[in-house]
Amino acid sequence: MPIQNKRVAIVGLGLMGGSLAAALKTKHACQEVIGIARRSETTALALERGLVDRATTDLRAVAMADIVVLAIPVRAIIEILPQVGQLVKPGCLIMDLGSTKASIVQAMAALPEHVQPVGGHPMCGKETSGLEAAEPELYQGKTFVLTPLQRTSAEALGLARELVEATGACPLVLGAERHDRLVAAISHLPYLCACGLVMTAEDLAQGDEAIWKLTSSGFRDASRLAASDVTLMAGILLTNREAAIEALNACQAQLHDLANFLLGGDEEGLRTALDASRERRRRVFP
Amino acid sequence: MPIQNKRVAIVGLGLMGGSLAAALKTKHACQEVIGIARRSETTALALERGLVDRATTDLRAVAMADIVVLAIPVRAIIEILPQVGQLVKPGCLIMDLGSTKASIVQAMAALPEHVQPVGGHPMCGKETSGLEAAEPELYQGKTFVLTPLQRTSAEALGLARELVEATGACPLVLGAERHDRLVAAISHLPYLCACGLVMTAEDLAQGDEAIWKLTSSGFRDASRLAASDVTLMAGILLTNREAAIEALNACQAQLHDLANFLLGGDEEGLRTALDASRERRRRVFP
Repeated sequence: MPIQNKRVAIVGLGLMGGSLAAALKTKHACQEVIGIARRSETTALALERGLVDRATTDLRAVAMADIVVLAIPVRAIIEILPQVGQLVKPGCLIMDLGSTKASIVQAMAALPEHVQPVGGHPMCGKETSGLEAAEPELYQGKTFVLTPLQRTSAEALGLARELVEATGACPLVLGAERHDRLVAAISHLPYLCACGLVMTAEDLAQGDEAIWKLTSSGFRDASRLAASDVTLMAGILLTNREAAIEALNACQAQLHDLANFLLGGDEEGLRTALDASRERRRRVFP
Repeated sequence: MPIQNKRVAIVGLGLMGGSLAAALKTKHACQEVIGIARRSETTALALERGLVDRATTDLRAVAMADIVVLAIPVRAIIEILPQVGQLVKPGCLIMDLGSTKASIVQAMAALPEHVQPVGGHPMCGKETSGLEAAEPELYQGKTFVLTPLQRTSAEALGLARELVEATGACPLVLGAERHDRLVAAISHLPYLCACGLVMTAEDLAQGDEAIWKLTSSGFRDASRLAASDVTLMAGILLTNREAAIEALNACQAQLHDLANFLLGGDEEGLRTALDASRERRRRVFP
């Protein structure tokens, strides 16, 4: 089952798909990388940069592949899955790189019996999108979540692992619901907070433009995710609504607690909370 | 009134004071830089690294200076000001680098008539503190807020501007209350949100350690400020309580609005909010 003998078709050549293609090509990990994109400008650029062996705007090219990776926004994945299921050859591994997993895994469950679906979510990215931003090292050392279905064979999961490892990433098998709950807190909430920070600053400044001269590296980093692609993020949030709402509510409660410490002049309570978050952050990023 | 002929005493040789000393020394901006620190290890290190011309643990050394810069935490500044006011020579410019200004300016108003006080707040820093982290380029290109008092002479404010410009920073004169209101939103809130993010993740994970494997550069940057020095930050927050509470409340309201868009499945409302924050962020950091 070595991935070296496999043809990999990547549907979507944006930042994630393009970087996956680049990683596989750079490391000569598989027999062939086929890039599929909507626009011919994108396929031309992918060929020009040597990120793929072949490129086409025709989705039917997935029929040639042993592994199909859907590297498009979450809702586009759900929409395209039935069609891809009809096109691929029997035994084909169908993976995706979508940022939420429960709704995708649910859509994968309806695929024809003869294909092997596995959900996937690499924990990397940038706030810039598009093939221009793609780079072979994007996945290096990053966690890459795999969410197999009940029906997924051990062999198919093994092949998915191989693909992940070929990119330099570290596979982590999780249930789809567990994944979605955890990423709501660790990924979607940071994005929403970044947006909230920018909107709060704008709101409180009440037109006083001096506020933007006071930004330092702290605000820059804390707000960085607000520059993310809105279409992509809206799709992610709307396919993980419950968990995202839970995370937003929990965060409001934390901010409320902090405000209460300040309101009561409770320095000890404030310090205990700030110390705890500092310690936790230092354990995660030593 | 050229700063070249002035002796500058810097009280506190941490990240900010040490970097100020380093900038002045590197650029040969003034006649002499005198470093004053509590611990002899710090004065020894400052001398060894060539950040100061002289260094001492004796606060009375401020008597030699034409300009005294208090580079210690906000509440320590308020505490030490009366003593410094007694020690300095007539006409001495007393500045500070504290992150909140109203309470400091209030304390400065009680200084002897014969000194010239000006509040200061350079909009730079790092999440690492201490003299070890000091660097001459820290102030380069950053906004440095000056909050003169009613009693501050134009000459003293001019000298403060000169000092700021000598470090490579850009002076911005603001009223203390206006400064405090704006930095609550643009600086203190990002810190509190970073802490809130870390605590929310810990809270929602409910002991599921897998969550920390899912951190990407997004969470890393969004939570970076949570690693800040807690004593420093508690002092800042507790001397700017009202504005910090207002910012926390406003941010909760923003997160509440975002949750409501998700709850109602209001994609248009959600996108409008996310687009607005993205556009604003891009205007601030093109």
